[in-house]
Amino acid sequence: MKIKFTLLTALIFTGSVLKAQDSLMIRKIYDEELVNGQSYSNLHYLCKNIGQRLSGSANAQKAVEWGKKLMESYGFDRVFLQPVMVPHWVRGAKEEGIIIKGDKKISVHIAALGMSVATPKNGITAPVIEVHSLKELETLGKDAIKGKIVFFNRPFDPKFIETLWAYGTAGDQRNAGPAAAAKYGAVGVIVRSLTESLDNFPHTGATAVVKDGANIPAAAISTVDANKLSTMLKMRSLPAVKFYFKQNCQTLPDAPSFNVVGEMKGSENPNKFITVGGHLDSWDLAEGAHDDGTGIVQSVEALRLLKVLGYKPKNSIRAVFFINEENGDRGGIKYAELATENKEEHIAAIESDLGGFTPRGFTFQGVSAGRLQNINAKWGKLLAPYGSGTLAAGGGGSDIGPLNEKQKGVVLIGYLPDSQRYFDVHHTPNDVFENVNKRELELGAASMASLIYLIDTQGI
Amino acid sequence: MKIKFTLLTALIFTGSVLKAQDSLMIRKIYDEELVNGQSYSNLHYLCKNIGQRLSGSANAQKAVEWGKKLMESYGFDRVFLQPVMVPHWVRGAKEEGIIIKGDKKISVHIAALGMSVATPKNGITAPVIEVHSLKELETLGKDAIKGKIVFFNRPFDPKFIETLWAYGTAGDQRNAGPAAAAKYGAVGVIVRSLTESLDNFPHTGATAVVKDGANIPAAAISTVDANKLSTMLKMRSLPAVKFYFKQNCQTLPDAPSFNVVGEMKGSENPNKFITVGGHLDSWDLAEGAHDDGTGIVQSVEALRLLKVLGYKPKNSIRAVFFINEENGDRGGIKYAELATENKEEHIAAIESDLGGFTPRGFTFQGVSAGRLQNINAKWGKLLAPYGSGTLAAGGGGSDIGPLNEKQKGVVLIGYLPDSQRYFDVHHTPNDVFENVNKRELELGAASMASLIYLIDTQGI
Repeated sequence: MKIKFTLLTALIFTGSVLKAQDSLMIRKIYDEELVNGQSYSNLHYLCKNIGQRLSGSANAQKAVEWGKKLMESYGFDRVFLQPVMVPHWVRGAKEEGIIIKGDKKISVHIAALGMSVATPKNGITAPVIEVHSLKELETLGKDAIKGKIVFFNRPFDPKFIETLWAYGTAGDQRNAGPAAAAKYGAVGVIVRSLTESLDNFPHTGATAVVKDGANIPAAAISTVDANKLSTMLKMRSLPAVKFYFKQNCQTLPDAPSFNVVGEMKGSENPNKFITVGGHLDSWDLAEGAHDDGTGIVQSVEALRLLKVLGYKPKNSIRAVFFINEENGDRGGIKYAELATENKEEHIAAIESDLGGFTPRGFTFQGVSAGRLQNINAKWGKLLAPYGSGTLAAGGGGSDIGPLNEKQKGVVLIGYLPDSQRYFDVHHTPNDVFENVNKRELELGAASMASLIYLIDTQGI
Repeated sequence: MKIKFTLLTALIFTGSVLKAQDSLMIRKIYDEELVNGQSYSNLHYLCKNIGQRLSGSANAQKAVEWGKKLMESYGFDRVFLQPVMVPHWVRGAKEEGIIIKGDKKISVHIAALGMSVATPKNGITAPVIEVHSLKELETLGKDAIKGKIVFFNRPFDPKFIETLWAYGTAGDQRNAGPAAAAKYGAVGVIVRSLTESLDNFPHTGATAVVKDGANIPAAAISTVDANKLSTMLKMRSLPAVKFYFKQNCQTLPDAPSFNVVGEMKGSENPNKFITVGGHLDSWDLAEGAHDDGTGIVQSVEALRLLKVLGYKPKNSIRAVFFINEENGDRGGIKYAELATENKEEHIAAIESDLGGFTPRGFTFQGVSAGRLQNINAKWGKLLAPYGSGTLAAGGGGSDIGPLNEKQKGVVLIGYLPDSQRYFDVHHTPNDVFENVNKRELELGAASMASLIYLIDTQGI
């Protein structure tokens, strides 16, 4: 009994010391970021001196070069590029969209969906059929749809507290809607922008392309214009509403590009890895500030913070700027392939791709309830004072996802920020540096560095 | 034993039923607000059709009339005004501020602090002494300060995770700095704007005026210009830096104004009250969107939500638009006086005056640790799914504060939103409707309605 008691005391004591050390280290991480943080100025450079950087574009290449130089300037143990071929889709001239009712013509804001095909050179004019789900296509059948433009107009459900759920449940219209409508003989597709915000921005984003060639042109329409179109379609007076649109996009041959990787070598387990990353590419309409410039600068900042504080990691720690998340995920796939090829055992991977808003915590993918409870017990109280105490089950992210298929032991972790404002700017020209708050961004970077520190010192 | 066991089971059963009911009601409140909410459109009207509404101004009176009409349109049991005399300070012509070093003159962004006196008609030019605390005045003494302009330049401490703490600890420079500097013979005071943001807005705000008449003119300077001034003061080359400023503000005789009160009568305890409110007045430079238009529209929305859902409160519930929080607190003082005079027993009062950002929870003033633990046990899990689960010790707010002095049993509660962006816009021309996010505002209104519902049904 006495020995046991002593052991228990010793354990409690050691536990307290560890916790106090952890708590101090986390405080240091936050202090360094909030006082001397470089994430905000790095984001400014990426947004304003490079700007949009769709895969395959000259700007994407500039971003790769910037990323490599930045990492080199921080003196990480190793900085390297991972070559990967990426899809090369270009928008071409600005799209035109017009609602036509007899002599009445109303110009609307549209943007081709990423990877969509072009319209014929002179555009398409056709009657419009409004639907609210893919299932409705089936109900309506070929006779009702053939020769028409299908208008997917199911709005975001505002009742979800987290907007990510609204995006998730409305997203099939954009992702799979065009290919599905094509099967029923539609000649084009217009999709209500994936946002709850009522604005004039068409929110672009990728749509799935089918290999058999039966692809039809598809564009996003702003929510304000979607409401207009829907209202006009409800009018019973003749002539019936038609829609005209013209887009000039095309898919060029795959282009060479790169993931950018910076690494701090592990002192105990150099071949075990903790990876943190975001995606370097952005849509062509925006500066890609929240999507995903913030994830990029937070990831490299997490490493910089640990390095500048003199932390020597047990395991190797990597910041990865993945290329091509938006329209192909090739960077993420390549990273996982190479990790496996090179027998790099990944303990954990963290992805930041939900915007640079105030942190709430992290989501853990494929972790058992018991393990998650343990994670909460160990780290919940350490992260809560910084607003990052929500450690919940949930997804990791598209770029780290492929690691899961290749490496069974890896824990995938998604950075979880406040989600209310993300879809106001997501995939629009409004996704600019000015819409990122310095402190929100910095708190996120510090929370990511803190989690890496905890995983590295204690395992997960 | 058996009876006790049965009782326990009954209690647990009743508890579960109650909890399920509560959970359903809270869900209904959120659904109604997120689908049919009126807070955002009300805020739009207040900001764009009325705009700035400093106490005593014609716009403040317009806001009172708008508030009364709005409450009447919602069909509350009783809507009334509480007359109260308020300070009437006016800014006059736009201020001028210039850093002078020999022939070099640099115009800077300044704004008179609220309640400050004017400079002489032709302005003041004097050497500048930079200080970082009120204590430093004492160290420097009269000889060093006399005849000079004191420049308070202690910045926000970025290390605080919640910006409210940074505001709290830097605020003495603006509140008490001018009166303190006057005692040492200073001829004017320039205060670094209370924000971490580096911008060109002077952030105004009230300064304490002393009754003996020894008041000197005081203005806020933008953080960008404060840095400029500080840099120039560090130059050793002669001639020494002087500062010129001119402001034309004056305090007119007190003006008549009103609190606006809307009430739903309690079915069981009509003379017991739960009050929710914000302040109707704003600074003159802004639309007063976050400060405190959001608090106003959330408060009335909380009542509207309960009413439209058919909820019949046990206790009387009030939405109060307090007047004159910014430069006098007269509305809050009057409300507490009248409550006591009319023997209206207040159970709880909730104030929203920290901006309309994503809710985190509520702070409870003067509640024992045990009671707070009990509040958390009862309501934490009900509010957490909506992001409002932080129920912590903390302040209530300036407008409900006087209730505490008058009514010993009242629990004062502050609405606690995310604090990262508040001081970017606080007391500046940038505090406009466009900087309020619809969903963030709505989630706050729904969280306030939910808390009122819980207090009303279960007590606190």
